[in-house]
Amino acid sequence: MDNYISALHTDKYQITMMYAHFKNGSHLNWRAFDLYFRNLPFGNGYVVAAGLERAIKYLENLHFSKEDIAYLKTLDENFDPAFYDLLRNFRFTGNIYALPEGTITFPGVPMLRAEGPIMELQLIETALLNFIGFQSLIATKAARIRHVAQSDQLMEFGTRRAQEKDAAVWGARATYIAGFDSTSNTLAGKKFGIPTSGTHAHAWIQDFPSELDAFRAYAKAFPDQCVLLVDTYDTLRSGLPNAIKVGLELEEQGKTLKGIRIDSGDLAYLSKQARKMLDNAGLTETKIIASSDLDEFTILNLKSQNAKVDSWGVGTKVITAHDKPALGAVYKMVSRYENRKWEPTIKISSNPAKVTTPERKNVYRILDQKNKAHGDLLTLVDEEIDESKPLTLFHPVHTFRRKKIKGFKAVPLLKNIFQNGKLVYQLPSLDEIRSYHREQLSQFWEEYLRILNPEEYHVNMSDKLWKTKRDMIQKVYQMIKMENGEA
Amino acid sequence: MDNYISALHTDKYQITMMYAHFKNGSHLNWRAFDLYFRNLPFGNGYVVAAGLERAIKYLENLHFSKEDIAYLKTLDENFDPAFYDLLRNFRFTGNIYALPEGTITFPGVPMLRAEGPIMELQLIETALLNFIGFQSLIATKAARIRHVAQSDQLMEFGTRRAQEKDAAVWGARATYIAGFDSTSNTLAGKKFGIPTSGTHAHAWIQDFPSELDAFRAYAKAFPDQCVLLVDTYDTLRSGLPNAIKVGLELEEQGKTLKGIRIDSGDLAYLSKQARKMLDNAGLTETKIIASSDLDEFTILNLKSQNAKVDSWGVGTKVITAHDKPALGAVYKMVSRYENRKWEPTIKISSNPAKVTTPERKNVYRILDQKNKAHGDLLTLVDEEIDESKPLTLFHPVHTFRRKKIKGFKAVPLLKNIFQNGKLVYQLPSLDEIRSYHREQLSQFWEEYLRILNPEEYHVNMSDKLWKTKRDMIQKVYQMIKMENGEA
Repeated sequence: MDNYISALHTDKYQITMMYAHFKNGSHLNWRAFDLYFRNLPFGNGYVVAAGLERAIKYLENLHFSKEDIAYLKTLDENFDPAFYDLLRNFRFTGNIYALPEGTITFPGVPMLRAEGPIMELQLIETALLNFIGFQSLIATKAARIRHVAQSDQLMEFGTRRAQEKDAAVWGARATYIAGFDSTSNTLAGKKFGIPTSGTHAHAWIQDFPSELDAFRAYAKAFPDQCVLLVDTYDTLRSGLPNAIKVGLELEEQGKTLKGIRIDSGDLAYLSKQARKMLDNAGLTETKIIASSDLDEFTILNLKSQNAKVDSWGVGTKVITAHDKPALGAVYKMVSRYENRKWEPTIKISSNPAKVTTPERKNVYRILDQKNKAHGDLLTLVDEEIDESKPLTLFHPVHTFRRKKIKGFKAVPLLKNIFQNGKLVYQLPSLDEIRSYHREQLSQFWEEYLRILNPEEYHVNMSDKLWKTKRDMIQKVYQMIKMENGEA
Repeated sequence: MDNYISALHTDKYQITMMYAHFKNGSHLNWRAFDLYFRNLPFGNGYVVAAGLERAIKYLENLHFSKEDIAYLKTLDENFDPAFYDLLRNFRFTGNIYALPEGTITFPGVPMLRAEGPIMELQLIETALLNFIGFQSLIATKAARIRHVAQSDQLMEFGTRRAQEKDAAVWGARATYIAGFDSTSNTLAGKKFGIPTSGTHAHAWIQDFPSELDAFRAYAKAFPDQCVLLVDTYDTLRSGLPNAIKVGLELEEQGKTLKGIRIDSGDLAYLSKQARKMLDNAGLTETKIIASSDLDEFTILNLKSQNAKVDSWGVGTKVITAHDKPALGAVYKMVSRYENRKWEPTIKISSNPAKVTTPERKNVYRILDQKNKAHGDLLTLVDEEIDESKPLTLFHPVHTFRRKKIKGFKAVPLLKNIFQNGKLVYQLPSLDEIRSYHREQLSQFWEEYLRILNPEEYHVNMSDKLWKTKRDMIQKVYQMIKMENGEA
């Protein structure tokens, strides 16, 4: 279901570049691209990689349908008919290496490396960025909320405010990866097996002569699953007294009122009062659920006021990544296969942050004996790391900042996903992804994980990689000078 | 294509409420809900209604598939088997009234009114808010950008940063409604017939021994459609001199270099220099395209500096509505059909802005002889407006603010879309929607349209509607007092 995504879900310039390469005879040349982001969103200390499964399904099924080709024929570009034959037989035939979903990652680290014929790598750029960028963004936002909610229950409620259907459904999946417990979206429930939650809205209450009648009718339909929304008229004077009445009526049937939900007002005050009223009535098992434009900051604040909330419903703020709705990931060429070997390539920019890091790379996490992370290390793909010798990590910009580490483990993070177009990766279940994500988090000290002003975690380069980058920058500037007769 | 959206694309609580109504015997009672928003996004003066076509396709095809029902059977709710029979035959059988796409609208105005059996109206709430909320948000952001870009060309480039696929595709459509000229997304091009644009990326340049080689190869592939990206190495020292060489080579073949694109750096300075260099070389027909994290503010600024830009490529900021990524629309019950007549209903709240306006309503735009709008007027559905008599408009909160208008036209804005489940609306083409949107804009004075601190446009209520609302608020508070023994 939904596994086929049209090859036309891409930018026009990918198709014009495919064509120009085809006319130039260079469309089948192998290249390598890194997909990564430059800046951390939300002031967070890390990003949670997500979206890979969606990308895998896309690549597995990628082709141009008859209708797609018929559409391309209508464009002004007047493509040579031979190009359509090429598209008719188009399949993804390259290699993909990627961080498994749930991995904790950092700016400049390749989340995915694609190797293959340039025309394929151009076509897939847009969709890969779209899928991985979005789910990683939402998983990261959700991880912040999970961090402050500690072991409380978290429910994702955002569908109505999501940016269209896919964002609701794939966004729900991303929040689940990062530790949310359920979603309100039943399509996401069906598609991914995520637990769903939700009971009734204000409209339910509004449709009965009184709140008490409404509560009773709801309890009758769901005696075992009854959560009542108590803020339609007046939370403490009407909603809670009525909910308690119904709760006691349920007790008489040997049932328990599962919860009450407060969706407006001062959640700190109301939840504390509600807890007291429920407890005084003997309804100590009844949970308190809070919702109402929540995010990591409001939850942190409410918890610091000892709000008596067992379960948080989070909507708009998580599903749209409200304070930073785009990750801004990029996809850059890092190597060209020419004359039977891989040659690094670089894209320079007047903005140093936008200069790419050349070469196909491995990514290692440097863990100490206690499995705590001391930094990530980017190396050339054919470099070996000798774990028996001390390793010097140095900051790629401020190179004087060095740190020596002994007795470490260097854990490679990128997994081979496709090899020559063939899927070689065993897709983990969603619950395995969740566990892997929790395990990843356990590698980091709290200083890196806190939601405000986290410590900067260092992504280091091996000597060889760092020197390659430096030399290539110099070479390019030399070239520009020569072309301008300045050398 | 993509016309079927699963009935499970909804919140779980809609399904539990459907069931609870079914158990209560009230599932077929007719109700009316208004869909509207409370606050204007981006500090804008208005919202552009969009997303209706998507909502129509959804409603037309709405049903529960066998798989959907099989999924519901797996849930803990233990629904009564008779409920599944109801779902198997589920279709939308109600009435829909809505603002046509492209309509300029305001807080509190029903963008859509749904009438029908409560169980249907609950189910569809989530998807309607999701579709209409998203496209209206993006169309509004795009309208702001169109406003400052004046008659310049606007290209939507945001797919890679969009919140998943649907947001890219439907978002492209929304920007086109609000006056963008093209999208980079070829799937949106195919699906909606929107013109597509895009040429090549930095990776194209990076794949050749020199920038000049890359430009020549591209010009060879697209002699009639050649736009060259000039900022890979150095815009003024390398990119432009090379583009000009290729432009002159094209001239020798009787062709024209269509454009150059600048994607980084000081766009004001670079575009002015580029214009001079191109003009000095005789390439006066070559257009200058700018991109690089643009929005209405950067474009306004660049234009105020006389940047020589013919065409703007706008990505992330428009496709995510970056500064306010959710419209926050709501859907509230306004009337109940009981004892063979419609009875108004209200939802109150301690926050006055959240108190609903009861009754099924008409929305009129009050236009003067010159077709300029003086306010919108909400009335009961059966109220008549006598255009031959002066009309007094008054502010619904600050009722002393009154304005009398004579010789006006009261143009009804809501159209009947579905009647008893049957589509009775002729869907306009996308180009008709664009024209209608431009015509709508022409009804408003610039004071309402400017992007910063626009004048507040007034949405007024008829006397009857205003009195109904006031009386119902009093009644509800009376009821709460009585229940608490305070009356």
